[in-house]
Amino acid sequence: MNEIKIGLIGFGTIGAGVVKLLDKNGSLLEEKLGTRLFLKKIADLDISTDRGVEVEPGVLTTNVDEVLCDPEIAIVIELIGGYEPARSFVLKAIANGKHIVTANKALLAVHGEEIYAAAEKKGVEVLFEAAVGGGIPVLSSIRGNLAGNNFSTVLGILNGTCNYILTRMTQEGADFAEVLKNAQQLGYAEADPTFDVEGIDTAHKLCLLLSLCFGTRVDLKEVSTEGISSIAAVDINFARDFGYKIKLLAIGKRDGERIEARVHPTMIPVNYPLADVNGVFNGIRLSGDFVGPVMFYGRGAGMEPTASAVIGDVADIARNLVAGISRRSAPLGFGDDKVKNLTIKPMGEITSKYYIRFNAFDRPGVLAKISGALGDNNISIESMMQTARSTNCTVPIVIMTHEAREMDIRKALSVIDTFDVIKEKSNVIRIEDNLE
Amino acid sequence: MNEIKIGLIGFGTIGAGVVKLLDKNGSLLEEKLGTRLFLKKIADLDISTDRGVEVEPGVLTTNVDEVLCDPEIAIVIELIGGYEPARSFVLKAIANGKHIVTANKALLAVHGEEIYAAAEKKGVEVLFEAAVGGGIPVLSSIRGNLAGNNFSTVLGILNGTCNYILTRMTQEGADFAEVLKNAQQLGYAEADPTFDVEGIDTAHKLCLLLSLCFGTRVDLKEVSTEGISSIAAVDINFARDFGYKIKLLAIGKRDGERIEARVHPTMIPVNYPLADVNGVFNGIRLSGDFVGPVMFYGRGAGMEPTASAVIGDVADIARNLVAGISRRSAPLGFGDDKVKNLTIKPMGEITSKYYIRFNAFDRPGVLAKISGALGDNNISIESMMQTARSTNCTVPIVIMTHEAREMDIRKALSVIDTFDVIKEKSNVIRIEDNLE
Repeated sequence: MNEIKIGLIGFGTIGAGVVKLLDKNGSLLEEKLGTRLFLKKIADLDISTDRGVEVEPGVLTTNVDEVLCDPEIAIVIELIGGYEPARSFVLKAIANGKHIVTANKALLAVHGEEIYAAAEKKGVEVLFEAAVGGGIPVLSSIRGNLAGNNFSTVLGILNGTCNYILTRMTQEGADFAEVLKNAQQLGYAEADPTFDVEGIDTAHKLCLLLSLCFGTRVDLKEVSTEGISSIAAVDINFARDFGYKIKLLAIGKRDGERIEARVHPTMIPVNYPLADVNGVFNGIRLSGDFVGPVMFYGRGAGMEPTASAVIGDVADIARNLVAGISRRSAPLGFGDDKVKNLTIKPMGEITSKYYIRFNAFDRPGVLAKISGALGDNNISIESMMQTARSTNCTVPIVIMTHEAREMDIRKALSVIDTFDVIKEKSNVIRIEDNLE
Repeated sequence: MNEIKIGLIGFGTIGAGVVKLLDKNGSLLEEKLGTRLFLKKIADLDISTDRGVEVEPGVLTTNVDEVLCDPEIAIVIELIGGYEPARSFVLKAIANGKHIVTANKALLAVHGEEIYAAAEKKGVEVLFEAAVGGGIPVLSSIRGNLAGNNFSTVLGILNGTCNYILTRMTQEGADFAEVLKNAQQLGYAEADPTFDVEGIDTAHKLCLLLSLCFGTRVDLKEVSTEGISSIAAVDINFARDFGYKIKLLAIGKRDGERIEARVHPTMIPVNYPLADVNGVFNGIRLSGDFVGPVMFYGRGAGMEPTASAVIGDVADIARNLVAGISRRSAPLGFGDDKVKNLTIKPMGEITSKYYIRFNAFDRPGVLAKISGALGDNNISIESMMQTARSTNCTVPIVIMTHEAREMDIRKALSVIDTFDVIKEKSNVIRIEDNLE
């Protein structure tokens, strides 16, 4: 096989990265694969904007069917993003017997089951390394060399925008709104940042990680998701005082036939390797029963790292085609008929240590009332910090709890937050410091 | 295919880990692979010692040919270690058409070329993830999802014994000999620790990383190798004062058609993720032209992590066999006929920043003589530190240089170390702080 023909749909930043990579490293890939990867067609509604990369005449088209229906094209790269028309295009490509490489976490988190079933029926591969952690080869490692492990935990810093904001808040002591505004000016955050800062993007990625680690379908709607907009500079300072950093973590844990699936700001000890994942970098820490803890770190987004992951998947499929086979493994690494429906543990049932910042008026007996309500709900206090009286007569009282049940915390706060000595809603951040 | 039969040669700690993994996670692997992995035979000279794992009667044999010549066995796992008889056994297994999975870095670093050629001829796979970084899936990622990258740099903390010793020296301010002795008592260092502490094991692993990253043969004898036995507590303290940690690093760099290949104690900034790879953990940092920097971290040795890597390779081959093919890619990820012979840059030609600790008598004009000799050899000083006079009238003078050529450093020291104001040989540690 001299050449494998590829089609690309969606010619944005990452698409341009793919063109650039094939242009620059095409010969290297040929030395590795024993065949040439040839990008035959690129479909996009806009084929006139200059993407800064050279494309041969005739490659660009506004007619997506020139990719999806070209019998010569063996692999379709989907980089449109979003649900539709990406879903329809991917399903049509599969129906036409094409292998799929995609960076579209939203699509797979929501429509993965339908797409994987269609791919099984046609015996084609669906690979999506670029959907989680940019260029970091974490999904291929879970499907691949780590396959012998039963995973117990997956923790991930998966959104560069959030991590950039939290890193700058940590380094500069600045507040969320201020850093967000600056990040938007610098292009590190979207004009509407909801998708990133409210944890939705991270939740999409967590769904994919959980599916691969545990061989299960995950319903995005059941993933408990909190973003970083409620984190204040004062929380970051208290975290530092207690030896923690605050990161937006995707957390997946196996607990028998149930899993925990949650995304929220989390305090992790400063000496954890994940605490050093700063700025736009991503980090993923897995824990397997044989490999133990293993961490991956790298650029979680951007034109070139994402193109690296996309082409890595294309190369994987190309090796199959060169060897004369079509499909080598199912999308989740488990046989399609082996994928389970593990239940997601309700958030109220999880246990964690907690940081709680109470905003109390500085009156006698405050602490007794708070600690009494915590005690009534089986929450025991590990340490407490109260700083000097502020000018407006309120003081932040910070309590770190021992391991407690989420529903007990919620119950206690529903009581405490109605106390007349409490000025405003308390701020809760979960702590993850008990990793093997 | 209901079952794939495996043979194991060398029933030591890792072999026992393999048995344990197949026993515990065999069903999980079957769900993933669509076939059962069946360990049919284990050959070892000693089949009576209890390894703490259960083996069916008839599985153990002292006759290695019951593994190498059994036509039912498709995959042979080699865990004997060392050069011979491992080499002969592996070649015989290949000649009999068996795929090879090995953890033997020494064997591949020295006899890789012969083994890869034999495997090419027979069309079988040779995989060796367990040879570098224990359970960390770094080699499979280089061959796999990172395949689209031209790598510029690979840095690795690859020897748990050295990293354990350096970590304890750093944490306790203790001297090398003292920590080594304790590490030997605890089983973290061998009775004869030369292989580990002099960097030889790390050099073997570097050879494999270089071969995969750059698609080249590497002659172990040309890898410049220094161990950690010359590191003193005082060097670690100075490093801390300058914002560095000392690690034994394997360093590979591409420079056109030449590569740098060296193993030596290295100062890295404390805020580099590699600086947080402590104790028996390993870390590998790659830099690719598209993925950018990417780091892997995990347990670099031990029964269970290494078994994870071995079985990951077995699973990879099993997926081929289930799909009906024998060989999917060549051992180095490059076509066998594409593997190059890149030249290793002579050590004298490398450039680096340097830490030099001079042991000088505390007399007037010492500094002028030293700095004069450095200047004469084109070495410019970035910073200098001289501590209080010690009781025996010598003072350590520490100089950090700007980027300099190794041969210039050596020339300067050959002059300086003969000065009558110098009490003993100066101590040189290279600095790596210019990573993108």
